[in-house]
Amino acid sequence: MKSFTSFSDIADLSSLVQDALACKKAPLSFSSLGQHKTLVMLFFNPSLRTRLSTEKAALNLGMQVISMNADQGWNLEFEDGAIMNAGSAEHVREAAAVISQYADVIGIRTFPSLKDRDKDYADQVLNSFLRYARVPVISLESAIRHPLQSLTDVLTVEEYKKTSRPKVVLTWAPHPRALPQAVPNSFVEWMRHAGVDLLITHPQGYELAPEFAAGIPVEYDQNKALEGADFVYAKNWSSYLQYGQILNQDPDWQITRQKMERTNDARFMHCLPVRRNVIVEDAVLDSASSVVIEQAGNRTYAAMAVLKSILTNAL
Amino acid sequence: MKSFTSFSDIADLSSLVQDALACKKAPLSFSSLGQHKTLVMLFFNPSLRTRLSTEKAALNLGMQVISMNADQGWNLEFEDGAIMNAGSAEHVREAAAVISQYADVIGIRTFPSLKDRDKDYADQVLNSFLRYARVPVISLESAIRHPLQSLTDVLTVEEYKKTSRPKVVLTWAPHPRALPQAVPNSFVEWMRHAGVDLLITHPQGYELAPEFAAGIPVEYDQNKALEGADFVYAKNWSSYLQYGQILNQDPDWQITRQKMERTNDARFMHCLPVRRNVIVEDAVLDSASSVVIEQAGNRTYAAMAVLKSILTNAL
Amino acid sequence: MKSFTSFSDIADLSSLVQDALACKKAPLSFSSLGQHKTLVMLFFNPSLRTRLSTEKAALNLGMQVISMNADQGWNLEFEDGAIMNAGSAEHVREAAAVISQYADVIGIRTFPSLKDRDKDYADQVLNSFLRYARVPVISLESAIRHPLQSLTDVLTVEEYKKTSRPKVVLTWAPHPRALPQAVPNSFVEWMRHAGVDLLITHPQGYELAPEFAAGIPVEYDQNKALEGADFVYAKNWSSYLQYGQILNQDPDWQITRQKMERTNDARFMHCLPVRRNVIVEDAVLDSASSVVIEQAGNRTYAAMAVLKSILTNAL
Repeated sequence: MKSFTSFSDIADLSSLVQDALACKKAPLSFSSLGQHKTLVMLFFNPSLRTRLSTEKAALNLGMQVISMNADQGWNLEFEDGAIMNAGSAEHVREAAAVISQYADVIGIRTFPSLKDRDKDYADQVLNSFLRYARVPVISLESAIRHPLQSLTDVLTVEEYKKTSRPKVVLTWAPHPRALPQAVPNSFVEWMRHAGVDLLITHPQGYELAPEFAAGIPVEYDQNKALEGADFVYAKNWSSYLQYGQILNQDPDWQITRQKMERTNDARFMHCLPVRRNVIVEDAVLDSASSVVIEQAGNRTYAAMAVLKSILTNAL
Repeated sequence: MKSFTSFSDIADLSSLVQDALACKKAPLSFSSLGQHKTLVMLFFNPSLRTRLSTEKAALNLGMQVISMNADQGWNLEFEDGAIMNAGSAEHVREAAAVISQYADVIGIRTFPSLKDRDKDYADQVLNSFLRYARVPVISLESAIRHPLQSLTDVLTVEEYKKTSRPKVVLTWAPHPRALPQAVPNSFVEWMRHAGVDLLITHPQGYELAPEFAAGIPVEYDQNKALEGADFVYAKNWSSYLQYGQILNQDPDWQITRQKMERTNDARFMHCLPVRRNVIVEDAVLDSASSVVIEQAGNRTYAAMAVLKSILTNAL
Repeated sequence: MKSFTSFSDIADLSSLVQDALACKKAPLSFSSLGQHKTLVMLFFNPSLRTRLSTEKAALNLGMQVISMNADQGWNLEFEDGAIMNAGSAEHVREAAAVISQYADVIGIRTFPSLKDRDKDYADQVLNSFLRYARVPVISLESAIRHPLQSLTDVLTVEEYKKTSRPKVVLTWAPHPRALPQAVPNSFVEWMRHAGVDLLITHPQGYELAPEFAAGIPVEYDQNKALEGADFVYAKNWSSYLQYGQILNQDPDWQITRQKMERTNDARFMHCLPVRRNVIVEDAVLDSASSVVIEQAGNRTYAAMAVLKSILTNAL
């Protein structure tokens, strides 16, 4: 693996998952693999879990970590040929090439605008770093994907599944703010290769981008969708069709204890942060069915498996 | 020691102080004790000394440190049962439990609102982390206590005392802004167990909360209070009775060279930062009597003793 | 070397450059020299290259690094005798002395106001830290100098020069904002000792401060200046004479491919960040003549040589 920005970057999902599980069993087995190697993480948008878990993963591998918030005084230009006489002080060509000399791996966190669909789906910030960096790049969530989360999700399903081919339901849930589609996009991109029966449920108008969701069944009736589910993965996202819009805030889409009763004693999953009593009832989140904390804990081991792959190829 | 948030968390003050002094003598004696252990520090409010000294202490013990400013894009919900459809994106239940998976010790820095006394004195941020974290929690100053500072203060008195039972005077001093009561609260909580004669002096209306100051003599005449003092500990705080108010800015309460002459050649102490020529005259701060720099230096060894206790129990 | 804030702090330029080149050849040769030593970097102004390269340099030497942005809630007082009853919460006397107890080396980054020339040229922030710190201080760019950049520049010229005494042209170039004079000041201060023929070209009114540029020839005709140049070092700066003003935004001062043809196949240098198609054409920056990326890469080795000198003296 050279860079890690989408499912297509990995050679084999199953072996990557096994690697992550091995890291979980013995997190310090490779504690000198990354010696004198530096991970530089650039946060164009805030992050809690991703920053901490990736940093912990790198430290477990013996790497050095430098985290920078690119929030103030650091406006990059991404357009080729730009005459830079306005707000942007540096072109990504220089920034990416320069940082590559101080880093062995670069992590990039960036969100979509949710205003211009074509621009967001071009994933310009991440792709510019991919293009101009001279070292491997890791997506710490981009405008349209969150692959470290998705690997974690596959790993968590693997750990908790009770049947060889579990039914996994990705369900939209209400939220007061317009959120990116990165997590559900990526979830579908990965889960379709994970040996599960994947079903998506959401209100009309919340169809995900075809490049991610094509061929995956959609059930508009949430109650029906949840029948017999082994895993319920809740997440809000804004509309792709009416791009970035909130079309629905119907509290009936919230995951409640009552709804969980329709499932096959399903595990409840969410990438966090989660809005309690908006996305999901306290009664579900605080029940034994919820594995959201363990899921977040797995972020470290997903990141370790990815960094380990990159370091191994690079050495 | 599991967590360190107030005096009641420690087993024995005297042995903790001796431990800190031993760390000061040989700061690298335990440099592998914390190997592969991670301290995550969350700053809900800014910090200079506490951040640097605690980070240095952790590094001396061989720990890894991750510091995060929780200042933007990171609004936690602290109320149980909240319907989170407004500003807060994550509940402390998840945040604390999740961070516990990336950290071996969590440090929390938080200030009071100075608006709602009951709420501040419930010390909600710190106590929520204590409740939901799954690893030891260290207070890096909470709404009402600053125990790392107080341990440092006891340590510093121990180093500089010339008699077996010195007279220690905590004196209020003027300040242009309304400040928390955390430092004086905690100072009294610890110093009453430190084998000293403790006296508090402040203008009427600045009485500290009974849960901290009950039984400690108060002298409203500062000049009288300073007579024969071995240590003068200056600090501003806002009123507890008229909660969060500034009742007095009388410059006569400033500590001057002239006032220091009433003492028994006392050492001048302050937790820093200090407003020069408002809290204390340059002539005092720059004199040989002042030990404020040495006091701040001791912060490292107080933090080392605390982290060492936590790591030792945890191992 | 005790501190590193200007050319006058170093013993011998040539041996420092050789040291940096040796670090470049074998960056991990001294990886235990800085063990248990801490570099604390304080950023009063933002930084990308300087922060990352200096941190990388310190890590290569086995040091621990703590970086702090002194941007919010941290207003220092720099005036002696100030009555601190307004915005400043801490005097640099305390701040510098206290941080010295947590750090073995302190790095300071600060920019000029560009409003008050005398004040800027007194370089108060850096000089206050120099005065009150009890450990070596490194300038990470001050109001009037950027010595880590200049050492890098000398190093880069040394690497790329094709003749024993190359012609180096420092050329002003247009920019939409008023920029400090720190980089050109420092460039001239160092390059005049670097065994090169140094020439400065800029529009009338952009003369640099005599304390830096006295005795160095100035050619107001850029085209003439570039004739036969071996190195073209482009940089914008605001006026020293009409202090902090933008006197000229003439696009004819931009470095173009056509202008580069007047040179002796010169290398193009810039300290970065650079405004593309304002300071310099894409065609130059993306050509084989440009060494700006390699130049930025050399920042690490310049910082290593400086830190190594400091650590060696200090041990």
